[in-house]
Amino acid sequence: MVELAAQNPVPHPVQNAVGVDIGGTKIAAGVVDHRGEILVQTRRETPASHPSAIADAVADAVAELRTTHVFGPVGVAAAGFVDAARRQVVFAPNLAWRDEPLADHLEARIDAPVVVENDANAAAWAEYRFGGGLDEHGNAVDDLVMLTLGTGLGGGIVTGGVLQRGANGAAAELGHVRAVPGGRACGCGNSGCWEQYVAGNALVRDARDLLRSGDPDGAPLLAAVGGDPKAVSGPVVTRLAQAGDPGCARLLADVGRWLGEAVASFVAMLDPEVVVIGGGVSSAGDLLLGPARVSLAENLSGRTHRKPPPLRTATKGNDAGIIGAADLARV
Amino acid sequence: MVELAAQNPVPHPVQNAVGVDIGGTKIAAGVVDHRGEILVQTRRETPASHPSAIADAVADAVAELRTTHVFGPVGVAAAGFVDAARRQVVFAPNLAWRDEPLADHLEARIDAPVVVENDANAAAWAEYRFGGGLDEHGNAVDDLVMLTLGTGLGGGIVTGGVLQRGANGAAAELGHVRAVPGGRACGCGNSGCWEQYVAGNALVRDARDLLRSGDPDGAPLLAAVGGDPKAVSGPVVTRLAQAGDPGCARLLADVGRWLGEAVASFVAMLDPEVVVIGGGVSSAGDLLLGPARVSLAENLSGRTHRKPPPLRTATKGNDAGIIGAADLARV
Amino acid sequence: MVELAAQNPVPHPVQNAVGVDIGGTKIAAGVVDHRGEILVQTRRETPASHPSAIADAVADAVAELRTTHVFGPVGVAAAGFVDAARRQVVFAPNLAWRDEPLADHLEARIDAPVVVENDANAAAWAEYRFGGGLDEHGNAVDDLVMLTLGTGLGGGIVTGGVLQRGANGAAAELGHVRAVPGGRACGCGNSGCWEQYVAGNALVRDARDLLRSGDPDGAPLLAAVGGDPKAVSGPVVTRLAQAGDPGCARLLADVGRWLGEAVASFVAMLDPEVVVIGGGVSSAGDLLLGPARVSLAENLSGRTHRKPPPLRTATKGNDAGIIGAADLARV
Amino acid sequence: MVELAAQNPVPHPVQNAVGVDIGGTKIAAGVVDHRGEILVQTRRETPASHPSAIADAVADAVAELRTTHVFGPVGVAAAGFVDAARRQVVFAPNLAWRDEPLADHLEARIDAPVVVENDANAAAWAEYRFGGGLDEHGNAVDDLVMLTLGTGLGGGIVTGGVLQRGANGAAAELGHVRAVPGGRACGCGNSGCWEQYVAGNALVRDARDLLRSGDPDGAPLLAAVGGDPKAVSGPVVTRLAQAGDPGCARLLADVGRWLGEAVASFVAMLDPEVVVIGGGVSSAGDLLLGPARVSLAENLSGRTHRKPPPLRTATKGNDAGIIGAADLARV
Repeated sequence: MVELAAQNPVPHPVQNAVGVDIGGTKIAAGVVDHRGEILVQTRRETPASHPSAIADAVADAVAELRTTHVFGPVGVAAAGFVDAARRQVVFAPNLAWRDEPLADHLEARIDAPVVVENDANAAAWAEYRFGGGLDEHGNAVDDLVMLTLGTGLGGGIVTGGVLQRGANGAAAELGHVRAVPGGRACGCGNSGCWEQYVAGNALVRDARDLLRSGDPDGAPLLAAVGGDPKAVSGPVVTRLAQAGDPGCARLLADVGRWLGEAVASFVAMLDPEVVVIGGGVSSAGDLLLGPARVSLAENLSGRTHRKPPPLRTATKGNDAGIIGAADLARV
Repeated sequence: MVELAAQNPVPHPVQNAVGVDIGGTKIAAGVVDHRGEILVQTRRETPASHPSAIADAVADAVAELRTTHVFGPVGVAAAGFVDAARRQVVFAPNLAWRDEPLADHLEARIDAPVVVENDANAAAWAEYRFGGGLDEHGNAVDDLVMLTLGTGLGGGIVTGGVLQRGANGAAAELGHVRAVPGGRACGCGNSGCWEQYVAGNALVRDARDLLRSGDPDGAPLLAAVGGDPKAVSGPVVTRLAQAGDPGCARLLADVGRWLGEAVASFVAMLDPEVVVIGGGVSSAGDLLLGPARVSLAENLSGRTHRKPPPLRTATKGNDAGIIGAADLARV
Repeated sequence: MVELAAQNPVPHPVQNAVGVDIGGTKIAAGVVDHRGEILVQTRRETPASHPSAIADAVADAVAELRTTHVFGPVGVAAAGFVDAARRQVVFAPNLAWRDEPLADHLEARIDAPVVVENDANAAAWAEYRFGGGLDEHGNAVDDLVMLTLGTGLGGGIVTGGVLQRGANGAAAELGHVRAVPGGRACGCGNSGCWEQYVAGNALVRDARDLLRSGDPDGAPLLAAVGGDPKAVSGPVVTRLAQAGDPGCARLLADVGRWLGEAVASFVAMLDPEVVVIGGGVSSAGDLLLGPARVSLAENLSGRTHRKPPPLRTATKGNDAGIIGAADLARV
Repeated sequence: MVELAAQNPVPHPVQNAVGVDIGGTKIAAGVVDHRGEILVQTRRETPASHPSAIADAVADAVAELRTTHVFGPVGVAAAGFVDAARRQVVFAPNLAWRDEPLADHLEARIDAPVVVENDANAAAWAEYRFGGGLDEHGNAVDDLVMLTLGTGLGGGIVTGGVLQRGANGAAAELGHVRAVPGGRACGCGNSGCWEQYVAGNALVRDARDLLRSGDPDGAPLLAAVGGDPKAVSGPVVTRLAQAGDPGCARLLADVGRWLGEAVASFVAMLDPEVVVIGGGVSSAGDLLLGPARVSLAENLSGRTHRKPPPLRTATKGNDAGIIGAADLARV
């Protein structure tokens, strides 16, 4: 168990750490204390050009944080496959990284130890330690699954208090577990991945289908996007649904039903104590989670002698990547 | 992390332990040493009647082992949902147990501490520690998934050297992850579970379909079962396939393809270092695993920038339940 | 086109004919006039024993009708594959017929020409000529698809005013078109047939699943069947749904949604002017057809530039087999 | 039945007719005699601009044919939904037609009666009358289904010697019957259509997936396309498969298996005497049809008491549209 302890060390009790979330359009960095609070935060545009420009931008943001705060290690959350040693980004679908030694490049620019984490894993850790994973007494559960419903579908798994990274750092790609044999083509090279049914892109695609169908239920949404189906976005659908539009509520309920079916499969695999739903789509709240809970109950294996775990909403929002990466960087 | 250590303690280095595997028709018990070797083994019929008769039979078998060997704790592998405390069988599909306090009943009859484990989890642990999970130098990997292809499909997960039991002891029901929406009805109450596509019952069902279809490819198998499709069993199909019958080879290849697709989904979730395939159907060897490896490679998410884990055959066969349960019982 | 005329001749304008509907438990026979009205009807139990006993029972019923009415030919509706010559029952799943020369056997007993038709085809013809297929002016459409939702799912196709029997008399087995690859096992030897999703057996299976799940939505139904899920039947579900029970309404809506998806596929194939829904399950009316219409609209290929055909309820009920068989027998 | 006769009149025994096939890139026109032979043929580029430019180009081609041959009516095959009166193109996915009165526009330019037909329907009629639908004595069967595997999947249905056009002219869109619930997105607005699994686009997509996967089986194909997966086309795959490349043979076999499953569903619906497979992909011959026949046999409903219809290759190739449209235009 010595190796285990090294892999997921007990966080240093008091030290501040920096978390950096590198997204396709912006870099957000913040100083995070031992309670998961962000003490200060700053942002940069994500340079589109060369990987070294990204490293420069991150270093610049961290240097700014240094001017006002004392902190130890730096944790970086990146959308992509991260190696098991938490040093390299093996592959990033939305950035120009292939086997990028990101930690090396950052440590050459920053006077602090750097670890890299997959962004959905970092978000799951943030919710596990400080957010939706806490019970009513503020205590962490031991076993949690988190699904992040952004444009795509990210996943994170904590079991026995340990973040699951897998043998190669590629664990918890829950969005790329297959939902439908022969199903919708996915950017990962497979078809039928859950990401194509449970995420913002699925919501938008279904909404556009509704508008193009000429179904009168789509009329309010069509008006809201000025008659252009391509202008549909997830937030517009959610806003109309929350204002009572039945067509948009049905779109969210459809995604919610798929979500419940996805969770049922993940529960059969991992039996978590709680499932946390985050990402932009989760802002729809019970319009999404109500139907999800029904379909989870209907699709739970062995449902006559067990109860489904609660589906809870994430509480850390867009800060989850920063908080989780910072916390995972502490020794 | 203290709890973690307690949950999956480092096995006592030298102590013998007893493992008991309670199946639907027979009970097998053996003394297992610290290297995973069975020193002596005995069997009993599984009493069909009352749960207490099963406890009596187990106690009788353990008493027999006591006459010749010294051992510490007793681990029991049972087909069913086991509670997180490893004391009760919550539900067993093939035995008359509902919330059965099996450990209490056995400790009242045996002078040794008893722990109960799910049988597929115990088998996974045996392969992880002593069998198919070891690398060429005899070292255990940290992250392993095992699938047991018996009549049904059992699963076991080890990550970071820890057996994953889940929050309620129900983890790793990989056979009941959904493979096909609206798919074949499953005894678990769901439909489309992997168990209905990847296991002995799927092989037998497909074989019977072949025979009833009148396809000439089924002629050798039909002859081998005396003209009665109901007489088909998995071993008959495997034996003919190994003797070169193309019809039976195709049946195994079909199950193998589904198996590869199942593994691809589990790899997306957990990124194990190795996947071990056990259970009676795995005796078909490369007739099953060859097609499985092809379909795993074809269905692996992100397959342009990663390699599939090796599929290895389990080496402990029917003893895996005894060995794993014994080893998990040691403190 | 001479053959065509012979195959589906214009019915004799005034002659009465007899229709006989041979079901698994009873035989119903009636004299049908040229307007599709049943002038008199009689019944017999279906003998379970030998095929000749069935022929005897049919002959006996027809003899009784002879005592009061004058009629020409006799048409027999049978559940099974009927040959293209309309003389033999090639295969009947629920009766002991294999290549049964039913027309020969009946003509040896009855002094009238006999033709045999598949029961779902006969029902489709009755609705096409005299029932749900008529427009608001009482005129027949040219192109109609009928689905009969009994225990199983029967189909019938009329195109250009011609009943489609296929090259071997086996056309319009719409219940055995595949809905789900790898789907639910079907008695026809295939898996995933529409019959397993859109018919009484699907409704009953889903209802039992609901009751076994312990879902509180199933409580009223569980009470209505005395606590025994096996006692559930389609009519009980429909009755409760019509009385306002939301759990039973949801069960019907689920079947309705599958129904709409099935119709969408059949419309892509055949582009009928109207689709008629009959059989016992259709008595649920808009509880079934409302959700079916929504899912038909959502799943119609090319839905931006075409309208779905109307879904109409059959009007001839259990008499459709008698009426259609009689009408098809007239020259 | 008078209407029926008018709808599908017996072709004039001796008169020549012109067939015009309007594709996305070229217009082909020919004079077709009563035996289905093309006496002379000419071509034009398809004008991309205004619909009237297409009409001008067709008229120009027909005028050229007039200079050397005598003929009666003109039949036009167009890729799109054609109205039941055979005068308008309601919708064409690849051309700028919406409710285009094509027959009117052509009759204003050509001194001959014009009828418009869907191109896949015209091809089916050509094969039914003069090609793959003829039996070994050169006689037409009564009931035929044709699938055209081009880039997409076209369908045509002949029953009782009558081409099935449907109530609105939209019949036989067999490529848009649903194969997979929740399946691949289709240009028709639906998902999971057979066209996404059985046609040239499916073959190309699978081939590109193979190349991107790095599977060594793809090496010969990758070399053949100069290392660029985007350069893959169906003919390249077929050529390599015919030269013995196992990777390309497997790609064709995969499409063939889906094809057999599609045919099994269409046989359940229509019970045709023969199924004809045409379009560019069908040039692969038994590399495609061999696996298709196996999967048809395995997926045929009621396969214990019936035989699958033969799958035959179309014989009219790219001329089928011209020949069928011409023949359907004759009175």
